Amino acid sequence: MKAAIISIGNELLSGLTVDTNAAFLSERLMSVGVATVCGYTVGDDVEMISEAIGNAARHADVILITGGLGPTDDDLTRTALASFLGVELLLDNGLLREIAEFFKKRNYHMADKNRVQAYLPKGASALTNELGTAPGIMAKYQGKTIVCMPGVPYEMKKMFDDSVLSIFAGAERVVISKKLRCFGAGESTVAERLGDLMERGRNPLINCTVDASVITLHIVATADSSDEARAMIAGDETRLRSILGPIVYGVDGETLGGAVGKILASRRKTISVAESCTGGLLAKMLTDTPDSSEYFAYGWVTYCNEAKVSQLGVDGDIIAAHGAVSEPVAAEMAAGARKRGGSDIGIGITGIAGPGGGSEQKPVGLVYICIDLGGESVVKRYVFPHSREKVRLRSALTALDLLRHRLHD
Amino acid sequence: MKAAIISIGNELLSGLTVDTNAAFLSERLMSVGVATVCGYTVGDDVEMISEAIGNAARHADVILITGGLGPTDDDLTRTALASFLGVELLLDNGLLREIAEFFKKRNYHMADKNRVQAYLPKGASALTNELGTAPGIMAKYQGKTIVCMPGVPYEMKKMFDDSVLSIFAGAERVVISKKLRCFGAGESTVAERLGDLMERGRNPLINCTVDASVITLHIVATADSSDEARAMIAGDETRLRSILGPIVYGVDGETLGGAVGKILASRRKTISVAESCTGGLLAKMLTDTPDSSEYFAYGWVTYCNEAKVSQLGVDGDIIAAHGAVSEPVAAEMAAGARKRGGSDIGIGITGIAGPGGGSEQKPVGLVYICIDLGGESVVKRYVFPHSREKVRLRSALTALDLLRHRLHD
Repeated sequence: MKAAIISIGNELLSGLTVDTNAAFLSERLMSVGVATVCGYTVGDDVEMISEAIGNAARHADVILITGGLGPTDDDLTRTALASFLGVELLLDNGLLREIAEFFKKRNYHMADKNRVQAYLPKGASALTNELGTAPGIMAKYQGKTIVCMPGVPYEMKKMFDDSVLSIFAGAERVVISKKLRCFGAGESTVAERLGDLMERGRNPLINCTVDASVITLHIVATADSSDEARAMIAGDETRLRSILGPIVYGVDGETLGGAVGKILASRRKTISVAESCTGGLLAKMLTDTPDSSEYFAYGWVTYCNEAKVSQLGVDGDIIAAHGAVSEPVAAEMAAGARKRGGSDIGIGITGIAGPGGGSEQKPVGLVYICIDLGGESVVKRYVFPHSREKVRLRSALTALDLLRHRLHD
Repeated sequence: MKAAIISIGNELLSGLTVDTNAAFLSERLMSVGVATVCGYTVGDDVEMISEAIGNAARHADVILITGGLGPTDDDLTRTALASFLGVELLLDNGLLREIAEFFKKRNYHMADKNRVQAYLPKGASALTNELGTAPGIMAKYQGKTIVCMPGVPYEMKKMFDDSVLSIFAGAERVVISKKLRCFGAGESTVAERLGDLMERGRNPLINCTVDASVITLHIVATADSSDEARAMIAGDETRLRSILGPIVYGVDGETLGGAVGKILASRRKTISVAESCTGGLLAKMLTDTPDSSEYFAYGWVTYCNEAKVSQLGVDGDIIAAHGAVSEPVAAEMAAGARKRGGSDIGIGITGIAGPGGGSEQKPVGLVYICIDLGGESVVKRYVFPHSREKVRLRSALTALDLLRHRLHD
């Protein structure tokens, strides 16, 4: 079974609202084995809506529409659907009572405008909206199903889960997906290593996305049963892990900070961090995860030189000789964090996040990261490209990834 | 002039990725008077991409395409565009050199797969991608302009602003927008206070969006000249500011951390912060802004009680008597940060971010925030709802906002 999604609303076309409904619906559909084959975004315009329904109906068996069911003049989904189906809109008295009831229960005044929400295209049925006044609409067209839901995300989600999802029950095939999270290689390197595994049409299908320097491989398996799909995913996961090795740091929603935290917790190691250019971002990533107090001890944001000296015991002469952004300062920051935090591990980061402050010898993006494990300590030098935000993000993630590798060694 | 947007990628249709590119483009287009009339989302499929281009071309003068320009086999935008235009793909040697140069500069290995990114549909021209290896493509079709850009948001944004935006110069009517950023009131309260000002059809149009607890009012003025539009915006800005008062903290892309930083810099005040539950997020927000070293001095993430005692001088007996999440501990953390950081201002945050660690007396979401200005100090108690992430975010933002109000008083 194939689905198409139509998102309606001028606010979506003016960029004022990001359409999160479509992603929600696609993910839900995939979980019951229905593939979304295309999406349309149109404004509050009867002709454009009708055209989108027509296009969608050529590709999909089910057409899910969100938005345009409100009581105001720019809500035209009802009218457009009736026009597409070639039928008239009829007042449904039962529906009108339900809407009136909704207002009464909440002691709200029902505006005359709300009456329009009780109209349905002839032959269509209503879907209950427990959280708002706009009922949904379900209609049939040439053996296909057209469903209209409100645009307000929480109303739409409840209506979809309560009244729409069940129409897909017994969809022939099951689709299950799993994500492998990777850090430490570019997208093209990953793709090259995977080779034929990423071929289109392959089952499981392997897709690759990149967000904030983290590469995610989506393994999407289609099968007759969920057991079979899960077995296919397990096979591919093993295959991908053996090809990609240590760049895979976790699965599904796992963050790099969470993955490092898990290793620290399992080994009963504690960590303290000293940050300059990342300004607290590394500590934030390490404490994003619940129960991070098990392993996270102390964090220092030592932005100025005096802070590095007074809080971490960095030698002022070393700063004077090498500059604050230097290998020995990173090493002393990490050692100071480890010792003063009474932790097993210390991390020190010092760098130039920019946009100002760079020089020929020390350009913007230059960052030194030290991982101090007590007995051993390593400092690495990087020049990260791009903006202040990216330099800070890459620095913190790279520190986490360096630590992950040291802990695995 | 009318535009259509095509977003390409299986990840968009599987719900794995929310399409934020389309909203960015629509907003930018609106700012130069170009209306987006429709949007299409299609997977990595040559036929579906071609069909979308054809549909888009029937409604729009400019077709903006994002995604599918990567080096892997699922990147099919180049092929689909060539097929739509009925031309072949040709290797552009200059482009190949640029891509090779991109890798060389960064000391990265260029995979063979990347060669495909140097191919262009015959007659099309390339758009420089300064941040990645995928060049953009610009082609003409029956007097219309087709532009392909990478799907990676920051690469796409830079390419659009640098090389694409200028093709819209000279559109008939000018649309200019300005954002007012607000913190400290709910969306419905803001809407209620604005009343008729938010009516649809009004010019300037005032729209309201919410992201991460920050409310943004978009003032969108349409006029015959940019001077006229700017004057209309100035009038509305004055109107809105007088209605909303101090909840407006800044304009356009300004963050709350940046707004507070500006006040600190202008008053030559320095700040140090002590964080428990926010784990570095407050320091990160204060140092997101370039030149934050002018005012940001020291940050401590004192996750455990010993850290609060040893690093900030919090009295261990007070922790024993009141608990780490308490009014006096927040006050001592702020005072310790101020004194030990040698700063004018200290902030202390202690709370329970959850999901664990709550009790009946001290529920998850309970947070104490202290602003210590030296002579005076104030502690506030909050119970923030929702997830760990939201509690941390609200806590850090609320601390910044409290400080903003103290500095204005």
